[in-house]
Amino acid sequence: MSHPTIALAQALIARESVTPEDAGCQELMKDLLEQCGFTNETMVFEDTTNLWSRRGNEQPVFCFAGHTDVVPAGDLSLWKTPPFEPVIKENMLYGRGAADMKGSLAAMLVATQRFVKDHPDHKGSIAYLITSDEEGPFINGTTRVIDTLEARHEKIDMCIVGEPSSSHQLADIVKNGRRGSISAKLTVHGKQGHVAYPEHVNNPIHLAMPVLDQLSTTHWDEGNEYFPATSFQITNIEGGTGALNVVPQTVTAWFNLRYSTELTDKCIVEKIENIIESHNIAYDIEWTYNGKPFITEPGSLVNSVQTAIKQVTGKYAELSTSGGTSDGRFIAPTGAQVIELGPVNKTIHQVNECVNCDDLKGLTEIYYLSLVNALT
Amino acid sequence: MSHPTIALAQALIARESVTPEDAGCQELMKDLLEQCGFTNETMVFEDTTNLWSRRGNEQPVFCFAGHTDVVPAGDLSLWKTPPFEPVIKENMLYGRGAADMKGSLAAMLVATQRFVKDHPDHKGSIAYLITSDEEGPFINGTTRVIDTLEARHEKIDMCIVGEPSSSHQLADIVKNGRRGSISAKLTVHGKQGHVAYPEHVNNPIHLAMPVLDQLSTTHWDEGNEYFPATSFQITNIEGGTGALNVVPQTVTAWFNLRYSTELTDKCIVEKIENIIESHNIAYDIEWTYNGKPFITEPGSLVNSVQTAIKQVTGKYAELSTSGGTSDGRFIAPTGAQVIELGPVNKTIHQVNECVNCDDLKGLTEIYYLSLVNALT
Repeated sequence: MSHPTIALAQALIARESVTPEDAGCQELMKDLLEQCGFTNETMVFEDTTNLWSRRGNEQPVFCFAGHTDVVPAGDLSLWKTPPFEPVIKENMLYGRGAADMKGSLAAMLVATQRFVKDHPDHKGSIAYLITSDEEGPFINGTTRVIDTLEARHEKIDMCIVGEPSSSHQLADIVKNGRRGSISAKLTVHGKQGHVAYPEHVNNPIHLAMPVLDQLSTTHWDEGNEYFPATSFQITNIEGGTGALNVVPQTVTAWFNLRYSTELTDKCIVEKIENIIESHNIAYDIEWTYNGKPFITEPGSLVNSVQTAIKQVTGKYAELSTSGGTSDGRFIAPTGAQVIELGPVNKTIHQVNECVNCDDLKGLTEIYYLSLVNALT
Repeated sequence: MSHPTIALAQALIARESVTPEDAGCQELMKDLLEQCGFTNETMVFEDTTNLWSRRGNEQPVFCFAGHTDVVPAGDLSLWKTPPFEPVIKENMLYGRGAADMKGSLAAMLVATQRFVKDHPDHKGSIAYLITSDEEGPFINGTTRVIDTLEARHEKIDMCIVGEPSSSHQLADIVKNGRRGSISAKLTVHGKQGHVAYPEHVNNPIHLAMPVLDQLSTTHWDEGNEYFPATSFQITNIEGGTGALNVVPQTVTAWFNLRYSTELTDKCIVEKIENIIESHNIAYDIEWTYNGKPFITEPGSLVNSVQTAIKQVTGKYAELSTSGGTSDGRFIAPTGAQVIELGPVNKTIHQVNECVNCDDLKGLTEIYYLSLVNALT
């Protein structure tokens, strides 16, 4: 008989929950949580299904956070097995969401079942914050659940987000923070006209080049103990009518910064707008604030998790703040300690996404011991 | 009864010859030319209908060149009258092609009819080189007729292209040359990846900025007596996957130079490729040679035409090489003297294209006197 984490992961993968669909994943989780004495609260916001589930009324609240939605399967012809039919081959479990992050959800639940059975009178509370909108626009997911909890003064003290944080081996890396992310759409205005009459045009692409060159070569900071240096990347640029003999009216560039706690969004906006202004061009800019940086310094959560990892793998994890954003950015600002810990992320968002079955069993053990270390 | 040039222009406008369609325009012209003793030779290349018509076997060959095709009408709701139903209002003839260049075709033909009647034993030959592919890709039009003539050693000595050269008044400007035009598509290669991992990407947009900035600020030449300074314009730029968190693999820029006789396409290519090479980037570039610059210095053709213009308008025309390319670029390399002379170009390619009826009558007179001055 297969390990309960593997069986549950398979049941979740079989539900085709392409973002923002939940496809019944949370109903399955709710049944299991209810059997463990949890009180479930489904929060539907627009197209998104969220679950807040809690066992106990005391602090500290130890929360598992995650998402049931997955990214689209992509080119089906490149999948060796159907993405929503979980298959185990050579000890690897294949399927969309296997690593990101239905395997983690299964490990959390099985760890929780066992913990509640072993320690029915644990201190504090255990909670689940699950959304179906992590892979989408993240407007109606975790952020709105957090708003709801904040409004009623319900606090999370420690939170493990089950994102696939591991790089080569299970739990080699734990994310204890994330850089901030800020994006902008910059449009430079010129004057359109025929290339044959250069005296009548003001080429916006020419105007934009030195500005974008200066931005892309600016030194932002050195980073710090927890964060790498802030980075700037132009992700898209678009200008032109398509005609080869017309100078366009505008050119638009989209860029993004991943920034450390050495900077704030406010000072980034100010610095960039000063640079643009110094070029004396007509422009407009729209900023998108994707998330402020956060850091969970070593403390009760990091200690509980690191001890559990050492017990299971024999090694402490490296603490890292690299990589993309996650829903942790919405939870950390409430004052909660937040870390991300999940399986190896090598195949996430790709075709033939997979996770090692032994890693899922090990992850279950780590989650279980983290609960033991934090709540007993 | 209306002036024969106006009547003929109306008959041509009524034929909906959107490029590369001829829609029977050349058949109408052939009938009239045949009545004047011309020998017609229709040359169909792919989708394009061309006419080579000649009266006489001697040199010099005085050729009228032009096109029967027109650009599409555009937004019909903005036309005050249907674009292919010629209407005269307040002495202006409205319709697509009225100015570019069915009015000129009509003026040439009526001038030729009168000249042949007045001077049946003129010296040299009169010829017509007409295409239905001037507004299109100009692959199967004038250039292929010229190839055919060159292959059989048939030479044009003097050529008036009926393009609308006039700016404010009829014949205020005659084009006696055109700048060269060369275009390129430059693709800069980087390494794609997620913006969150700047150490794993090599941003092609960042690599391209200083290259394009240097190209757009390079001084190419000062121009000369006949040509303005060479100009460089980036017309289109495109890079990015559309995703706001992905650095793309490549960025592509399209640019164009309008260049004087101070430069050659060869030295432009060499200079630009040297600049790009100096940035040590991975790139590829595709060049398109749109036409070499040409100049018709004052001589028998310019003198004949200027004298005719002075006789009709009381003023000499300004000689200019500004503006876009025309089919003159295909004819000039054979050694022919080439000028462009036609009505006011203010409304060409726009809705409600129109031409002044008096200008068409004046143009007929100028064409007639040019024939008289050149061939008698």
